[in-house]
Amino acid sequence: MFVILVYDVNTKRVNKVLKKARKYLNWVQNSVLEGEISEANYRKLKMELQNVINEEEDSCLFYTFRTTKYSQRESLGIKKGGDDMII
Amino acid sequence: MFVILVYDVNTKRVNKVLKKARKYLNWVQNSVLEGEISEANYRKLKMELQNVINEEEDSCLFYTFRTTKYSQRESLGIKKGGDDMII
Repeated sequence: MFVILVYDVNTKRVNKVLKKARKYLNWVQNSVLEGEISEANYRKLKMELQNVINEEEDSCLFYTFRTTKYSQRESLGIKKGGDDMII
Repeated sequence: MFVILVYDVNTKRVNKVLKKARKYLNWVQNSVLEGEISEANYRKLKMELQNVINEEEDSCLFYTFRTTKYSQRESLGIKKGGDDMII
């Protein structure tokens, strides 16, 4: 399955969230990661994030797709994405 | 078509970007909007955002889908979404 993750967490926890998420997904833009992931790893990812975030302050949004073919990804402005960027 | 928009813009321009985007899409979470949109309105939205953002500093990411049926949207933590929330 294909997953897009958008997180909105307190800056104190951004690094932890990012570290967990990058184990499974590729960083695309500030607060956004995406990638192909197995059902099992998706469950793991959610559990790991749940352990890191403060559920009363933070939020993580997942869009999941059965196929890798989302019709298009377009961007305006600077391209921030890239696997190797560290934010 | 269905669009997910994730923006990452300088705080100076967040309100302008949000105002433009909310004309066409529904706010879901900090920096994330989504919704059903016509091809024509999608082009308009991109043009309007392009006029508002600083292309050297800001970025807007669009995922577009031919169908409204993305298989799932899940969230962890607090639910920030809601059409009527103003951030």
